[in-house]
Amino acid sequence: MSDGFEEIAGGLAAVAKGFHARGWLLGTSGNLSAVVQREPLQIAMSPSGADKGELRPEQILSIDEHNHIVGQQGGKPSDESLLHIRVVKQLGAGAVLHTHSIWNTILSDFYAPQGGVKIEGYEMLKGLQGVPTHEHAEWLPIVENSQDMPALAETIGDTLNQHKAAHGFLLRRHGLYSWGENLAQAKRHIEILEFLLETIGRTLRIREQVL
Amino acid sequence: MSDGFEEIAGGLAAVAKGFHARGWLLGTSGNLSAVVQREPLQIAMSPSGADKGELRPEQILSIDEHNHIVGQQGGKPSDESLLHIRVVKQLGAGAVLHTHSIWNTILSDFYAPQGGVKIEGYEMLKGLQGVPTHEHAEWLPIVENSQDMPALAETIGDTLNQHKAAHGFLLRRHGLYSWGENLAQAKRHIEILEFLLETIGRTLRIREQVL
Amino acid sequence: MSDGFEEIAGGLAAVAKGFHARGWLLGTSGNLSAVVQREPLQIAMSPSGADKGELRPEQILSIDEHNHIVGQQGGKPSDESLLHIRVVKQLGAGAVLHTHSIWNTILSDFYAPQGGVKIEGYEMLKGLQGVPTHEHAEWLPIVENSQDMPALAETIGDTLNQHKAAHGFLLRRHGLYSWGENLAQAKRHIEILEFLLETIGRTLRIREQVL
Amino acid sequence: MSDGFEEIAGGLAAVAKGFHARGWLLGTSGNLSAVVQREPLQIAMSPSGADKGELRPEQILSIDEHNHIVGQQGGKPSDESLLHIRVVKQLGAGAVLHTHSIWNTILSDFYAPQGGVKIEGYEMLKGLQGVPTHEHAEWLPIVENSQDMPALAETIGDTLNQHKAAHGFLLRRHGLYSWGENLAQAKRHIEILEFLLETIGRTLRIREQVL
Repeated sequence: MSDGFEEIAGGLAAVAKGFHARGWLLGTSGNLSAVVQREPLQIAMSPSGADKGELRPEQILSIDEHNHIVGQQGGKPSDESLLHIRVVKQLGAGAVLHTHSIWNTILSDFYAPQGGVKIEGYEMLKGLQGVPTHEHAEWLPIVENSQDMPALAETIGDTLNQHKAAHGFLLRRHGLYSWGENLAQAKRHIEILEFLLETIGRTLRIREQVL
Repeated sequence: MSDGFEEIAGGLAAVAKGFHARGWLLGTSGNLSAVVQREPLQIAMSPSGADKGELRPEQILSIDEHNHIVGQQGGKPSDESLLHIRVVKQLGAGAVLHTHSIWNTILSDFYAPQGGVKIEGYEMLKGLQGVPTHEHAEWLPIVENSQDMPALAETIGDTLNQHKAAHGFLLRRHGLYSWGENLAQAKRHIEILEFLLETIGRTLRIREQVL
Repeated sequence: MSDGFEEIAGGLAAVAKGFHARGWLLGTSGNLSAVVQREPLQIAMSPSGADKGELRPEQILSIDEHNHIVGQQGGKPSDESLLHIRVVKQLGAGAVLHTHSIWNTILSDFYAPQGGVKIEGYEMLKGLQGVPTHEHAEWLPIVENSQDMPALAETIGDTLNQHKAAHGFLLRRHGLYSWGENLAQAKRHIEILEFLLETIGRTLRIREQVL
Repeated sequence: MSDGFEEIAGGLAAVAKGFHARGWLLGTSGNLSAVVQREPLQIAMSPSGADKGELRPEQILSIDEHNHIVGQQGGKPSDESLLHIRVVKQLGAGAVLHTHSIWNTILSDFYAPQGGVKIEGYEMLKGLQGVPTHEHAEWLPIVENSQDMPALAETIGDTLNQHKAAHGFLLRRHGLYSWGENLAQAKRHIEILEFLLETIGRTLRIREQVL
């Protein structure tokens, strides 16, 4: 494989380890990907069922746009790779990260009747690509969870078409997806959205703005 | 001792250190075991009273099915080894892990009147062995705590007979037991159940669904 | 650059890494500075947009009192450097640290109608420079957030003139600033104020003293 | 100094680093001690004002029963050494640890009107020296905070005389003291009491058993 792949695989493993330490990828949950090349599409992707706290670069898979393994690797691509591929192709993202945190799980359910979480007026929002001020309202859409990945990929594609400014979305009682032009930006977006979701969740309890 | 034992002992010490860092094995609480061989049964088991954050592989004990030390080792087997042996023999588990977390302690008491915690509809459940979808209801039975280990082992045996699909159980105001075919799977199950118990505990406070 | 700068840059990177691990500098948020020399003023400052968990000493910028880079370095000074420079010049601080924690964000909003947070009667207050007893009332002023940095620097200057005993201030829905004679003291002040804000936030929920 | 002192100093520094990482010794708060010899009394003690996350063994002071430094060391003994000396002399403790955690601070205030915290029926209690069962009621006395250390030492002495079975005490809005026959046991006691205080604090919020 190319040098690019190995560097990207090392980066994915490092992010996985850090997020696992924060409790965002427990129990082999979540997955991480980054684009190696566009034409034809090749994506470096964490394998199904791996312990993210001990993920080694050599476990990272290389997949194509149909979620088939490129080359001679072992390991099984996650079914959720289809969602990563969708985000990469539709938005031109260079990296996609998916976390299962306590707070994203709770809020993905709590705000599901509203269809999304509105995050507004926090300085932290400025860290999202293209947001110049805290006077910004980020809408994080919530999509119902499903095990039918091709169908879910379609639903997500439609949702992202309706919310073109979104920097992420939540799967209900499942987790958070975010992305970026590259792995560093995707990591930044996850950290920001996880921070803001926890802030909102803890504020709910103080203000008792229970819906 | 066999190479197998040494590798298993190293694995148990690594899991112990990681769980201690998360606050799931504070104050020498909890214990960890894995099967070395079945016939005759030999189990690698953390010793009584050890600081799990500093557990060294050479402290891991080798015990038989009667909780007697095999060979010339020092160290004292924990009385709770009887519960590990029971789970290993009754379910054929290859590893058993027992944690004392804040949230498993709180929920083991809060839901004790219902006899268990129902965990339903979370994607995270898919990480439990044999669960293909989030549309699954996991019943985590709660057993009253006791210092009479042989009697407690019997009660747990009966409880697991009644709830054959369970991936773990709670001892009231005491902690969580889970297991797996091997250490990696048992670790995955503990991480998943701890995550889900914390999620449920924190949701209770937001939704005020206090029973 | 001088030996002094390199040592200070190493110290800033170490503090950044530690605070990032605690979740106080997620998503490239926050910034850190320390004075290298007074006449003319030279400040070592974290660059804009850096991942604080991976900040390397060689990324630290050297800026003057007008937020211009001194020497041949790359990197872009943060607009918020103006606030650091203001604190350094007005208070004679030797180091200024700015964190974005969950609890400082929540309380900066919750207490904004009162114009500040009163922290009173905690032993932890004794760790603030010049405070000899827990029988002390610290007033942490809250300033409305803004993207107009020169104007915000003026407002902060006025606020600090009105509250000369303050060891820090909050920007609403943004974060905490604190400082000290040197980096070690500024770090101590941040740890103390973060601890006390979390203590107050969690107490609110138990006592239901919701305003 | 003796080999014993160096080994003890290394142990104190390691415990300090671990507790600081957990947020129990932020902002130079808290202190740690262990007996080097009894006749005449010599105690290894953390110095005043040190960052516990970076405490080095060579910073540990050697003090006598009057809180005077033994030998040629630099550093300033903490005024709170008097409390450590009192516990060592009155109870024969071999090590004394004092932490400032969020939860011990909150509960030390919340339960102050009752004069203490009753901790009952948790398996975790079995880790306290001499407690054979979870069917134990631990009374953790709460003492009003003061800056008059000799007077506070007397009050604590009286309180411990009244509660001879106690494994620790709280100073109101200040922190937790616990001890043991040696450093390992004192560390175990702190971990257990911190765990139980957090469990009780979080349970309060769910059950709304607000007094």
